[in-house]
Amino acid sequence: MPIEQDYRPGLEGVIASETSLSFLDVDAEEIVIRGYDLIELATKVSYLDIVGLLLDGKLPNEAERESLEKDLKAEYDIPEAVISILKALPKDTHAMDALRTGISALAGFDKELEDRSREANRRKAIRLLAKVPAIVANSYHIKMGKSPIEPRKDLSYSANFLYMITGRVPSESEAKAFDQSLMVYSEHEMPNSTFAARVIASTQSDLYGALTGSVASLKGTLHGGANEAVMKMLLEAGDQSQIEPLIMKKLKNKERIMGFGHRVYMKKMDPRAQLMKQALLKLADEKGRHDLYEMCEIGEDVMRREKGLYPNLDYYAAPVYYLLDIPIDLYTPVFLAARTVGISAHVIEQHENNRLFRPRIRYMGPRNLHPRRS
Amino acid sequence: MPIEQDYRPGLEGVIASETSLSFLDVDAEEIVIRGYDLIELATKVSYLDIVGLLLDGKLPNEAERESLEKDLKAEYDIPEAVISILKALPKDTHAMDALRTGISALAGFDKELEDRSREANRRKAIRLLAKVPAIVANSYHIKMGKSPIEPRKDLSYSANFLYMITGRVPSESEAKAFDQSLMVYSEHEMPNSTFAARVIASTQSDLYGALTGSVASLKGTLHGGANEAVMKMLLEAGDQSQIEPLIMKKLKNKERIMGFGHRVYMKKMDPRAQLMKQALLKLADEKGRHDLYEMCEIGEDVMRREKGLYPNLDYYAAPVYYLLDIPIDLYTPVFLAARTVGISAHVIEQHENNRLFRPRIRYMGPRNLHPRRS
Repeated sequence: MPIEQDYRPGLEGVIASETSLSFLDVDAEEIVIRGYDLIELATKVSYLDIVGLLLDGKLPNEAERESLEKDLKAEYDIPEAVISILKALPKDTHAMDALRTGISALAGFDKELEDRSREANRRKAIRLLAKVPAIVANSYHIKMGKSPIEPRKDLSYSANFLYMITGRVPSESEAKAFDQSLMVYSEHEMPNSTFAARVIASTQSDLYGALTGSVASLKGTLHGGANEAVMKMLLEAGDQSQIEPLIMKKLKNKERIMGFGHRVYMKKMDPRAQLMKQALLKLADEKGRHDLYEMCEIGEDVMRREKGLYPNLDYYAAPVYYLLDIPIDLYTPVFLAARTVGISAHVIEQHENNRLFRPRIRYMGPRNLHPRRS
Repeated sequence: MPIEQDYRPGLEGVIASETSLSFLDVDAEEIVIRGYDLIELATKVSYLDIVGLLLDGKLPNEAERESLEKDLKAEYDIPEAVISILKALPKDTHAMDALRTGISALAGFDKELEDRSREANRRKAIRLLAKVPAIVANSYHIKMGKSPIEPRKDLSYSANFLYMITGRVPSESEAKAFDQSLMVYSEHEMPNSTFAARVIASTQSDLYGALTGSVASLKGTLHGGANEAVMKMLLEAGDQSQIEPLIMKKLKNKERIMGFGHRVYMKKMDPRAQLMKQALLKLADEKGRHDLYEMCEIGEDVMRREKGLYPNLDYYAAPVYYLLDIPIDLYTPVFLAARTVGISAHVIEQHENNRLFRPRIRYMGPRNLHPRRS
């Protein structure tokens, strides 16, 4: 049976899965999360509501939300052995590689690892959502030669996550901006990292393994690594006067400017970027860093004028994380932590209605060669 | 732009990549590896020749082969920290999870990790090919409370790998059977684990991360885990008289019988299975275990008669590994070690001509919901 099908590089436009989790409706300019507009959610609910929505199919009521928070807090602690493993890594290990190793090691501690039922997968997702922030934060502290920071159960989930990163209890507006960033990063249809997780899970492999693959994917500069690249560019420019010359120089050298454009959104502005831009304005004003906001806006204008490209989420999330005192190395790990719920929900869905991913290739090499040796 | 395309579950029949590495020519019943018939290669050359062929595009001559072997042996040692990490894992960690954690940790020790050039990727592939066998073997010994086994550079690559697993220098025919099994596992077009690696690598993530995703994929029972399931079934049957009743009972209970059928080969016998069947016959005769060979053949006949299904590679590789004294827990890790060269070659190819994998979905959930809370 010859394969007559078209080859679409990168599977662009190819439907890889059916899902009830999310959909990028480009025409309506809406990111649909289980029927809700993500942007509306991100202005009206909090991250834990989206966790409940993604895992259970509906927004939790007050009691369900409290129960979810209690379940998460009960699973905050990470095994001492995982801390030892993080300590054994070389000091220059990439933060995403440390996170991947930590999550991979954690698998052996989960007694329900090989149970792929919805209920067991949900419990594993809760454990991961509880522990991934601690791995993210503490892999960094360990790398910097500092002691791990213990989680604080008196803080909200998001405030505790930010506290574990910075070692400082965040203000209400800081915690809110961070919570909102977790919401906009939580789920986004079928980006590479989610696709990698579904591909892996389709062999009936487990949630931890699938998430390990997502971490590896998100590390790439064409995916999650972009938010770090954005911040490095902003810092390289230094102030409002230098961002335009820097971008023009980079464009002239045919360097890729990160934080702009998106395979799916094409020429429209990422609605999540718009929300993070508002969050940046608020934080910048509070912290007397209106210059940073202005610099970002100039960069946005230059890229629209020169390339017709609009900012994506990473472009405005990066300066928000900068003002929240998150180390640049942790921008991508934080993205992964926020996305853990979306990836987990996709793995649950994949295991519930599974079909092994096994595509074909177009062979471009020689034929009919024979070895001389015998 | 509405998506009009058909949804093909599991991407069945969809062309995901162009490649010059391999092709399953189902009509010709040939597994093409860079123009050669894999089965012809597996009877005429050795595993290191296939390593050279996959990484460099041509079969090595004697001098190139010696140089390749020297390069591999120079990279055998694994960092003491990786041994510590393996020791820190809980004793009941799945062998594939230990391997995944070990490979993930190893990334931080590779000074060329972030260099995606062909040359650097090739050097990283050599390091992985040199070190993965040691991680496979020693993660098992550590789990069993034994000391790690040091590699022996006086043995061939394959003989050393088998020696590190069993602690016993293999006979010539044992080493040859093992080498042949590594060849038939080395590369196989676009199975899930290779696809996972290419998906991950397409974000410009690195070889170690891509391989980590492959390990996670191969762990699944619908993929690499099958060889272990086959051996457990053969041991459950116990002898020739019991295999038919056992399979009939399992079929009646609608249990899946592992080691039969293949998405691509469909109703034909996997040519690699045929080769491993011959290797099994030879080993079984040498070791006075003709009963095991007979049991496998009866199982093969029953499945063809009852389900019209033919054995795949896993069905005959499993009893070969059993007779080579490889612990069952290591069958899938050994498969991954053998496939590391194929996966590495695919990652090199992906990085040389990259396009980010980013498919779409068909949304099946509700629309136009609004949160009540504000």
